[in-house]
Amino acid sequence: MKLPEQAISRLRQIVGAEHVRADAASLEAYGQDALGQVHPPDLVVIPGSTQEVADIARLCNEHRVPLVVRGAGTGYTGGAVPTRGGIVVSMERLNRIVAIDEVNLLAVVQPNVITADLQRAAEKVGLFYPPDPASLESCSIGGNVAECAGGPRAFKYGTTRRYVLALEAVLPTGEVVRTGSKAVKNVVGYDLTQLLVGSEGTLAIVTEITLRLIPKPPARATLLGLFADIEPAVNAVTALIERRVVPATLELVDADSLSAVRDHLGQEVVPAGTGAVLIVDVDGMQAAVDEEMDLVAAACRDAGATRVSLAAGEADRERLWNVRRLLSASLKATGLLKINHDVVVPRGRVPELFGIIRALKDEYRLRIAAFGHAGDGNIHVNLMVDRTNASELERAKRAERVLFERVVALEGSISGEHGIGFAKAPYIGIELSADVIALMKRVKAAFDPNGILNPGKIFPD
Amino acid sequence: MKLPEQAISRLRQIVGAEHVRADAASLEAYGQDALGQVHPPDLVVIPGSTQEVADIARLCNEHRVPLVVRGAGTGYTGGAVPTRGGIVVSMERLNRIVAIDEVNLLAVVQPNVITADLQRAAEKVGLFYPPDPASLESCSIGGNVAECAGGPRAFKYGTTRRYVLALEAVLPTGEVVRTGSKAVKNVVGYDLTQLLVGSEGTLAIVTEITLRLIPKPPARATLLGLFADIEPAVNAVTALIERRVVPATLELVDADSLSAVRDHLGQEVVPAGTGAVLIVDVDGMQAAVDEEMDLVAAACRDAGATRVSLAAGEADRERLWNVRRLLSASLKATGLLKINHDVVVPRGRVPELFGIIRALKDEYRLRIAAFGHAGDGNIHVNLMVDRTNASELERAKRAERVLFERVVALEGSISGEHGIGFAKAPYIGIELSADVIALMKRVKAAFDPNGILNPGKIFPD
Repeated sequence: MKLPEQAISRLRQIVGAEHVRADAASLEAYGQDALGQVHPPDLVVIPGSTQEVADIARLCNEHRVPLVVRGAGTGYTGGAVPTRGGIVVSMERLNRIVAIDEVNLLAVVQPNVITADLQRAAEKVGLFYPPDPASLESCSIGGNVAECAGGPRAFKYGTTRRYVLALEAVLPTGEVVRTGSKAVKNVVGYDLTQLLVGSEGTLAIVTEITLRLIPKPPARATLLGLFADIEPAVNAVTALIERRVVPATLELVDADSLSAVRDHLGQEVVPAGTGAVLIVDVDGMQAAVDEEMDLVAAACRDAGATRVSLAAGEADRERLWNVRRLLSASLKATGLLKINHDVVVPRGRVPELFGIIRALKDEYRLRIAAFGHAGDGNIHVNLMVDRTNASELERAKRAERVLFERVVALEGSISGEHGIGFAKAPYIGIELSADVIALMKRVKAAFDPNGILNPGKIFPD
Repeated sequence: MKLPEQAISRLRQIVGAEHVRADAASLEAYGQDALGQVHPPDLVVIPGSTQEVADIARLCNEHRVPLVVRGAGTGYTGGAVPTRGGIVVSMERLNRIVAIDEVNLLAVVQPNVITADLQRAAEKVGLFYPPDPASLESCSIGGNVAECAGGPRAFKYGTTRRYVLALEAVLPTGEVVRTGSKAVKNVVGYDLTQLLVGSEGTLAIVTEITLRLIPKPPARATLLGLFADIEPAVNAVTALIERRVVPATLELVDADSLSAVRDHLGQEVVPAGTGAVLIVDVDGMQAAVDEEMDLVAAACRDAGATRVSLAAGEADRERLWNVRRLLSASLKATGLLKINHDVVVPRGRVPELFGIIRALKDEYRLRIAAFGHAGDGNIHVNLMVDRTNASELERAKRAERVLFERVVALEGSISGEHGIGFAKAPYIGIELSADVIALMKRVKAAFDPNGILNPGKIFPD
């Protein structure tokens, strides 16, 4: 599967010699993502245009060499990691906001625009791009599209999928295609746009993205609810759903996660005795925000919150949200191995999911820190493992499979946000039937007859 | 492609003899939809379970006989019409609401549940299923899924696609598959659910649908804006978008459409001199509704509305919306042939679209009645043709292609709601490149290797 020297010369011609890298440092840097496992590619190629991407794809297809597309490298499941060598095509030079179109309420961006940069550009003109993965200051829109990124605001606003109107993409065989259009409705043929969203770089190489924007909500407010234990907090979530309230976000953080943040910051973040917190954002017209926030506060109190407080102004909001955003870093800073899963259950079954987590802690003698998008039933379950303890590692491995099995038994899914990559590929058979996997592989072959694009991802070998 | 007698006997065994029909009346009735062109099938089969559907599919696949799935037969592009004969599989017996799940905010339905029935069942418990195609009292959810139905509320709430969480479907080769899950987020493998939505019954036979429901907005209001001409009405739409207001609906009706309703009802529906109307719904918390409605009214007045009035109560609302819902029937009642297109342009380009319509009227000497979802840029353009006038028919045919070409030149799409079926298949090359069409055909083959499912649809021969 090695590229012959002649093909490497051709790659240098296509993108310019300075954009082809084979030094050890580059191969290591481009051989990993946030999962933390390194699989160096044979070569890193950094194209500067769609045409260059197409030429690279054609060359790789001709030589049957794996081509792995890389955005910002913030994925959690190894989706951008070249486990089978070959070429990493980094999209880092395709990083331009092509247009913020106020008249048609849309944005056109190249794949490596950073999510938060797009959000700021939209908000500057009173528009709003809702998807807000925790890594929004470093992840790219192209990666968000590849994984169908979510985030806290998905509760009210949906995930990346809802905002993708059209794509320009290069097929692994080299054709440049355009899917969708700038119209918000389009039922002409199969919705290849939606098929490409979440396909983890295995079907095509996205080179331009047209995104729907919405008007920025004129007002918002943030509420912090403190609870003595996880149960009343979870009950508050179901109570809100019963009251038919739809906040913008409905985030839950458990005690183990809170103490990790405390240790990381070196200061208390919540009063002693706090066993769980809810962070609830409400947005919309000011009058509606006030009315909804009253309902949220009442639901929290009724569920037994020990304290309910409204953020006083934007700085206070930021401080609250900062605790939430620091969770991943804080858990990593424990020095323990953080085996991070993003399971999801039907909205009303979050209490049962926390029952599963409690049982796993006992059955497998594990530390588990859980937090996340409770309103969506999407909880980040972090198995915190001493990597020097072989028995604990082995117990974590067993617990992981059991977690997936029990989540699927609750009619949920093994991944709500992070995708499968190669890390979860061995487990997709828990959720998908053999017939569905076979069908997906036929769809893959319809795009990529020679299987060069991101091989070893999604599907178990 | 005829079924041998032995296979027909087998079909009788599968569904029961009383559910296999070959009488002339049935073949005619099941050989057409709202497009009005009749292509009788060889046989109509009416299964009562998923297993029966799977057995039928396997049999058809074995004998290479066309299998055309039919819901309520309300489609406008012949999607359910068996243009190549074979078997029509009518889903009419699969018409049960399996569950309205208040805890998890979802509904599970069989395909032939009528859309309005689901809406009423959801609203009874304070929940809401937004998609509202004009045919909602007669169309089925399965058909809505096949075509990705929209409707006025798509402006705020999106189309059918946004609500489909999971599907049970039978592949044309007979396997029963489940896609998606009851969780609102799911990124496990390719999103086959979204691929099936809008695939017009060409990829698989949907036998059960799991739909996301949302809380019913507690309040709503309806505004009628009257304008002397189409231009100020269209300007009001763009003004609203500029003011970042998102009503639930933003419907525009032109003068020709209004006079058709007047003739149909035999009474004036708007004051003399009215050249266009806007019907705007706002919903949400009461306080927000009031605030938003003020903005809507101001935008209409600023754009030059001759009158702006709020519906006084639910009966008045219904009366207003009834005018809108009667448009199609009224245009049909003219006795003219109504060639109905559902083109869509980027939201801000609606003025240009009405410019195109005006030009077509002149260039091709045609009556054209236009109305629809102005907020989405999705306008129903009805060429009203004297079917006894060969020259006018021919001019309409030419105008149709020019309309599509000009809409695509505006970065729009030739269909926003009705799909392609066989009526628009000759035109998809205006919008989609040869590479995209070839890719879609490979996707089709991944599902349906023998091409038995709804042949002759979407793709030109």
